[in-house]
Amino acid sequence: MEDFLKKHIQEIINLTDDEFEMVTSLFRKQKFRKRQFLIQENQPVKDIYLIEKGFLKSSFIDSTGKEHILQFAAPNWWISDFAAFFKQDLSSVAVDCIENAEVYCISYEDLDLLCTKIPKTEHFFRVKSNFGYIALQQRILSLISKSAKERYEDFLQQYPGFIDHIPKQLIASYLGVSRETLSRLYS
Amino acid sequence: MEDFLKKHIQEIINLTDDEFEMVTSLFRKQKFRKRQFLIQENQPVKDIYLIEKGFLKSSFIDSTGKEHILQFAAPNWWISDFAAFFKQDLSSVAVDCIENAEVYCISYEDLDLLCTKIPKTEHFFRVKSNFGYIALQQRILSLISKSAKERYEDFLQQYPGFIDHIPKQLIASYLGVSRETLSRLYS
Repeated sequence: MEDFLKKHIQEIINLTDDEFEMVTSLFRKQKFRKRQFLIQENQPVKDIYLIEKGFLKSSFIDSTGKEHILQFAAPNWWISDFAAFFKQDLSSVAVDCIENAEVYCISYEDLDLLCTKIPKTEHFFRVKSNFGYIALQQRILSLISKSAKERYEDFLQQYPGFIDHIPKQLIASYLGVSRETLSRLYS
Repeated sequence: MEDFLKKHIQEIINLTDDEFEMVTSLFRKQKFRKRQFLIQENQPVKDIYLIEKGFLKSSFIDSTGKEHILQFAAPNWWISDFAAFFKQDLSSVAVDCIENAEVYCISYEDLDLLCTKIPKTEHFFRVKSNFGYIALQQRILSLISKSAKERYEDFLQQYPGFIDHIPKQLIASYLGVSRETLSRLYS
């Protein structure tokens, strides 16, 4: 299990055995079943989660009860209500499991401690955040400049493994199109 | 001038005079006139830019020649083609001035050097990146869950100072609606 964490982090930084021991001491391993929530709305958000196994989603429920998908997370991805976590505020989105999942989590205080004690890990999280930012800019460009069909094709090309794990209805919501529109395009 | 840079950075971290001297030695000050480009497409992206004065935009021109606004930047905001900068790739978006502008810029190599020499600055850039990520998630939620009218109202509320600096046509593009739709809503 710890091999997964080591491999994930060492894609960006190198750690000594002692440093890695500190990393593992601050992460906790958790298992969730399909449909279980890691974060529910209007609650304090204590942790960010790194996925080892399974597929998760974060979503926003609007005033009419409709679910809007903010993010999917596959193995090696991070998920949380990042706005609530970094602002230490109550959650406005929920995070739950599309499939049974195994995750590593770290709290706000421990993340801070880790970055202070081992500055290289601050670099790791800065790089992760930068690449997350870039991916969101790409998604925004896709949302404002492309048709529903092009967005779906982009999604399939960018995340070829997702289609086997994620129901079409959720993909439609992620792309900002109705389930009917997506069905019409691919019936 | 350097007071601006100091104040901007000290919103997140404290620097000693010696540390701040290193920071200022790595940033360069540049002035641009309205309509000048900081970054044109298909070119190496050497710098990220912190705005002291003026308004800028980054935009993507699609195959039909239509401009799509990825980002606006006001004083105290950062702008670049971040994807190209962090991947050290050629630009796919352009950055130009909506108004005359004064900016501070730092190169990829100098940013790296700064973060290595003064780990606190890595923290600064991680926090900036996290908050940028959060803002983009909010924009995505708005794009997938709200009507054109709601998006425009959100924009006005979130960025009350922008409407006096940015032509309506650019705001329409940023919101992913046509100029005609925006006019119909607010004629």
